[in-house]
Amino acid sequence: MNKIAYVHGYSERETIRLADQAGSLRELLHHDTVYPPGSKILEGGCGTGVQTITLARQNPGCEIISIDISQDSLRQARSLIEKETIANVAFRQADIFALPFTEESFDHVFVCFVLEHLPSPAEALYCLKKVLKAAGSMTVIEGDHGSWYCYPESREARLCVECLIKVQANLGGNALVGRQLYPLLRETDFRNVSVSPRMVYVDTSKPGLVESFSKNTFIAMVEGVKEQALGFGMIDEKTWQKGIRDLYRATEEDGTFSYTFYKGVGIK
Amino acid sequence: MNKIAYVHGYSERETIRLADQAGSLRELLHHDTVYPPGSKILEGGCGTGVQTITLARQNPGCEIISIDISQDSLRQARSLIEKETIANVAFRQADIFALPFTEESFDHVFVCFVLEHLPSPAEALYCLKKVLKAAGSMTVIEGDHGSWYCYPESREARLCVECLIKVQANLGGNALVGRQLYPLLRETDFRNVSVSPRMVYVDTSKPGLVESFSKNTFIAMVEGVKEQALGFGMIDEKTWQKGIRDLYRATEEDGTFSYTFYKGVGIK
Repeated sequence: MNKIAYVHGYSERETIRLADQAGSLRELLHHDTVYPPGSKILEGGCGTGVQTITLARQNPGCEIISIDISQDSLRQARSLIEKETIANVAFRQADIFALPFTEESFDHVFVCFVLEHLPSPAEALYCLKKVLKAAGSMTVIEGDHGSWYCYPESREARLCVECLIKVQANLGGNALVGRQLYPLLRETDFRNVSVSPRMVYVDTSKPGLVESFSKNTFIAMVEGVKEQALGFGMIDEKTWQKGIRDLYRATEEDGTFSYTFYKGVGIK
Repeated sequence: MNKIAYVHGYSERETIRLADQAGSLRELLHHDTVYPPGSKILEGGCGTGVQTITLARQNPGCEIISIDISQDSLRQARSLIEKETIANVAFRQADIFALPFTEESFDHVFVCFVLEHLPSPAEALYCLKKVLKAAGSMTVIEGDHGSWYCYPESREARLCVECLIKVQANLGGNALVGRQLYPLLRETDFRNVSVSPRMVYVDTSKPGLVESFSKNTFIAMVEGVKEQALGFGMIDEKTWQKGIRDLYRATEEDGTFSYTFYKGVGIK
């Protein structure tokens, strides 16, 4: 079991959060997640299937195999895909670090919000590369919590966000992996590596993003580590409460929120 | 004299830095800096004229009046424009807070890298708005030094960048003004305010940007405040030197650099 526990757990709230996130960010992250019809695609670490829906919808002529190490996540993913009547996805319980596939059996590999949770992201890329055909592409999408800032900002708000980063680090993950995609894809010997930032900038001229991204994705994600942050003694209750209030303050009429995801593509 | 001294001074190095910056960022910041032919445009705070060249070239059919409070900067700007044989710009020494123009006499106002140096950016926008015609546009471009991060990153590198922010604050400016453009344009009663981030992401697949942006713009800007940072006791020499070394470290083969500018447009 190389894959560590998710920071955010598998609560119902988390599923909602991931769904919200997928909805508001679909165009930004996935407008170019398009493969030639007939391709066989491996989705490594599909979680509850939120990205799987987009991947499948954008590539109706492709065969998608989506794996996750967690049976519980796969159960939710299967139920989601059935509800959406999507037919080109097969799910399988599997560990990225011990893939049950023949070498060079996939045309493309797709990994979204997975490396951030792994203590050895380069090893994961090596493992995934083995089952990728020569000249096939590896796509990796990750956030970078260190890219966040807002207006107005406070010391306490920043301390809360730092808790999110520290909790993920304590669990063996890396919440700052977005900025590192280029060296990761290069050190794992992919060719023609190209990384592009996908920045989410939110002000109140976009009320949908204030709700779906600033509140229901980012602040919800921070709030999700409260217990761990207090439990690890990273922050005290009073500072935490002020920090969360200040994060919500930046979603008011005159506030702004900035956050950046990175999408990297390399060729085997 | 409401305008405070520039953080970076008026050294030759600074002129080179600003020229480099303009070159590498022209497309990102100015591809949409285009006005209807026949427009009369006020450039507020033209400095040494680096942005003026782009503004004039992109709008050959417009009449541009570029002002700055510094005669020394204007002298450099005039010489630059003459060298480039640009004919649609007139320079004039003037204070943004005491403009020598008739009210409602410009079709559009353009301000780039100016608000960051002002202790009262909203007041500056009010003053500029007075000379703008009804339904004319106000364009503001600013950086945000708090948006910077890199890989690999170190505590010392971050402390050096924080010195840049603190030195600017000590001089009455605000190096984090980029994220604040939306509320600034709204509170000064512009309509249809639209702000877009312009992110510079640099890895070694773009060697030109490593040189022109990461090294010759951003790190050079940090290095430019060394004397003030040490003089104000913000940092010690040893930490400074390690921080600068670490910033250069992030320009090596496996390094990445991220920085975001903001462009805001509002209608009077």
